[in-house]
Amino acid sequence: QPAPAEAVSAPALGAGSGLHPLTDAAANAQLHEYESSVKHAFDNLVPVLQRIAAERCEPDFVDRAQQIARAELGFDLPDEILDTAWITGLDMRRLFAACVFKTYHRMSDAFFTADPLGGRGGEAFEQFLLECGFHLMDVTPCADGRLAHAISYVLRLPYGRVRRKSYAGSLFDIENTVEKWVETELMRFREGLPNTADAPTRYLKVVMYHGSSVDPAHQGCAAHGSDDAAAARAGLERLKAFRQAIENSFCCGASVDLLLVGLDTDTDAIRVHVPDADGYCDLEHWLDAAKVYEITRGMTPAQARTRIAELVRAHAPGKAAGDALPDGMVRLIGGLIERNLSQIDYVRQYHGGGYADIGHAERFIGAGIGFEEIQLRNLTYFAYLSTVEEGAADLDVGIKIFTGLNVNRGLPVPIIVRYDYHGGVPGARERAVEHCERIAAALKARYPQLCADGMLHCLRAVRDCDAAAPIEIVGSSLDPAASGGH
Amino acid sequence: QPAPAEAVSAPALGAGSGLHPLTDAAANAQLHEYESSVKHAFDNLVPVLQRIAAERCEPDFVDRAQQIARAELGFDLPDEILDTAWITGLDMRRLFAACVFKTYHRMSDAFFTADPLGGRGGEAFEQFLLECGFHLMDVTPCADGRLAHAISYVLRLPYGRVRRKSYAGSLFDIENTVEKWVETELMRFREGLPNTADAPTRYLKVVMYHGSSVDPAHQGCAAHGSDDAAAARAGLERLKAFRQAIENSFCCGASVDLLLVGLDTDTDAIRVHVPDADGYCDLEHWLDAAKVYEITRGMTPAQARTRIAELVRAHAPGKAAGDALPDGMVRLIGGLIERNLSQIDYVRQYHGGGYADIGHAERFIGAGIGFEEIQLRNLTYFAYLSTVEEGAADLDVGIKIFTGLNVNRGLPVPIIVRYDYHGGVPGARERAVEHCERIAAALKARYPQLCADGMLHCLRAVRDCDAAAPIEIVGSSLDPAASGGH
Ligand SMILES: [Zn+2]
Ligand SMILES: [Zn+2]
Ligand SMILES: [Zn+2]
Ligand SMILES: [Zn+2]
Repeated sequence: QPAPAEAVSAPALGAGSGLHPLTDAAANAQLHEYESSVKHAFDNLVPVLQRIAAERCEPDFVDRAQQIARAELGFDLPDEILDTAWITGLDMRRLFAACVFKTYHRMSDAFFTADPLGGRGGEAFEQFLLECGFHLMDVTPCADGRLAHAISYVLRLPYGRVRRKSYAGSLFDIENTVEKWVETELMRFREGLPNTADAPTRYLKVVMYHGSSVDPAHQGCAAHGSDDAAAARAGLERLKAFRQAIENSFCCGASVDLLLVGLDTDTDAIRVHVPDADGYCDLEHWLDAAKVYEITRGMTPAQARTRIAELVRAHAPGKAAGDALPDGMVRLIGGLIERNLSQIDYVRQYHGGGYADIGHAERFIGAGIGFEEIQLRNLTYFAYLSTVEEGAADLDVGIKIFTGLNVNRGLPVPIIVRYDYHGGVPGARERAVEHCERIAAALKARYPQLCADGMLHCLRAVRDCDAAAPIEIVGSSLDPAASGGH
Repeated sequence: QPAPAEAVSAPALGAGSGLHPLTDAAANAQLHEYESSVKHAFDNLVPVLQRIAAERCEPDFVDRAQQIARAELGFDLPDEILDTAWITGLDMRRLFAACVFKTYHRMSDAFFTADPLGGRGGEAFEQFLLECGFHLMDVTPCADGRLAHAISYVLRLPYGRVRRKSYAGSLFDIENTVEKWVETELMRFREGLPNTADAPTRYLKVVMYHGSSVDPAHQGCAAHGSDDAAAARAGLERLKAFRQAIENSFCCGASVDLLLVGLDTDTDAIRVHVPDADGYCDLEHWLDAAKVYEITRGMTPAQARTRIAELVRAHAPGKAAGDALPDGMVRLIGGLIERNLSQIDYVRQYHGGGYADIGHAERFIGAGIGFEEIQLRNLTYFAYLSTVEEGAADLDVGIKIFTGLNVNRGLPVPIIVRYDYHGGVPGARERAVEHCERIAAALKARYPQLCADGMLHCLRAVRDCDAAAPIEIVGSSLDPAASGGH
């Protein structure tokens, strides 16, 4: 059975099922199985811990608790928390944090060992991308948890072949992206990967901003005050600045291609601001995948694909812009929209056409560099950062969100501090571990009261991203040794 | 008259003057003129401010103070400090900090407009380097102020053609250096600069550690507990790790050349750990420039050069290693030693053969990224950093040093926060300014008592390093608006 990310050229399976003719129903079923099993694992923690709490006066409490945990959660609870319960009472906050961390660890391990979304291959997509005229697709969604599934679900792309780099408000770091461009070009020159430098392909930088169709004034992008137009404008400005940076810093006609995409976080329908041949796009005009869905739902797959290509050209800004638009860009945008049709049906099939959780409902905060395994909506609030000093604003927003989600009902904020490294670089692992420790210490310094109250717990993990290896847990605020100083 | 950095192939001028036959006496005179004028400007501040303080009961104090300042320092004192002196008394701490910042600003402007060390050209050196088989020389001295003159004085290299990146204990950042390597290779591939990628030249990474011959146990490298051997070992380990990182991360025979150099900070004589043809060098053996000086002082320049090349080969580790060593590496090391002979004479001519200030005597702390204009010994304590969170250890050492130098005699610590940016990248200047402000705020958070007592003042400056432009002052803790919150 084909991995969902590979499905672009597979025959459409949706016909006759009430789905769009281009929808990949098998992929939808597989994606929903994954989403619901992971989210169930997290959402089951509170009811199971409540059952365990109800047993705490029983003489064989520890045995009963472990039996329930094994049966319901599939893992043992940490002995050191249960064993002292008879003296100090059962510390439910520590137990909750430990269970969140354990659940994350199991989910992360499954991801890196079993590749449940089949996104590690993706040769077919890479070929498609090259044929469209692009040697790398680099996507910046907003760091908002409601966009964490942008690659694997919304766009149905293989996560292993697309660069995802999330930033609050989709405001990606230009200097960092220039570095990635340099690295990418050098690989083409030195190693001919993914193609040689003389091939006329380009680096494609995509920004995905977002808004909410159900509650646009409150559930849009927090970084832009829930103002869709402002979010789109800021995204386009950043894109243009990146292109300018490349053109100014390198000679010989160096440039990049740009694409501005919006997401309705309630329905997962995208809108694409189709550019003209010069890369100019219009903030006020876009092609909406939900409309494409309606226009093409009664057609055969082949008819629908032809119509999509026409619609893409028709939405280029200016009079003759559509005709001048390169075939490759039309094909790429058409491909993204086609993939998104499956996701529109996914939300219709499994989430009633619109998510119940239109607002924040993340299960933990992820802070640092990495988190490739997070491909699910509303699972993680991301604070991509190298230091708390630079990432303080994003972290403060995360703590505010989790004050509402967790602290106000007595549960701690679980933070996973993560730092990925390149195992081929000597000492990189040790530096990554130090980096985690520095971030964890800075978190403690920034939120001293939450830490002192046991309302903030922090797991530290690193990963060798060259090795396709699972994460390695390197410490936790729950560790017995560390608990004294906490 | 040739710029000092260009002097490598100029005829030796030292003969008959009691100097070494290869010493460039004219360059020495010019370098000393620059060093003494800049240092005089800083060291004159305290005596002049004492004279001004003595006038403070005179009715025309402000006029007298400005007259003295203009005559002795060459600039006006800030009116806002003098004008309130009759009310609150003369705030000598603010006045001192303002004068240090003004003196730094004048010195920095002179450097970027007049190029007093003639280090911006350097085409002859670049040619020499290419002939030796290297397309970039990237030097990491320790961030210790006693090595700040390593490029322009100790090695007599044109600062505009050598990458200098200082780190505490010479422990350079491997990831950052790999990035620089990538950038360098791409320039060779895309633009053929400084040569095309098919030329068999290499990236040369140099580490300069240091020790003190006068007081080895106390005045060596603080980052390595004044243990020369430990400093050398750590430097070599870092060099090897960098090479490993390049070899592991890139295929097609990618590699780099390495060179380990030690500096005696009392005499400025270098020692070179000559490598063998495989790049292996011995921590226990080196070629000492002071010995080369003694061996060759009675020779003609041509004889001396031949003897230096022989000595280099003789100091390669292992039996036949010297013969196998490539001519280019021999020529490079010989060139560095020859240039250092001038500096050995410089210290003999102008500093009695050994500096009076064998320990720390820096005039200010420089924190951030940049400071190309600092090419003088013991002028600046460097804390190269992107955030206080990551650079806290280096900053704490700097504050400790300045507690001894300044605070204990009642004077504040002057810190210059600096962030250089690439002007070709849109928004880079604004981000650099924000970066300065973030660092300044983090400094205030880390040293609240010093700030509250007026014992720490902070100037913020940015610079477009693509434009060969002077620095731009963007703020200061002395600003009237900011003083309330300080
Ligand atoms: Zn957002
Ligand atoms: Zn569902
Ligand atoms: Zn040092
Ligand atoms: Zn002098």
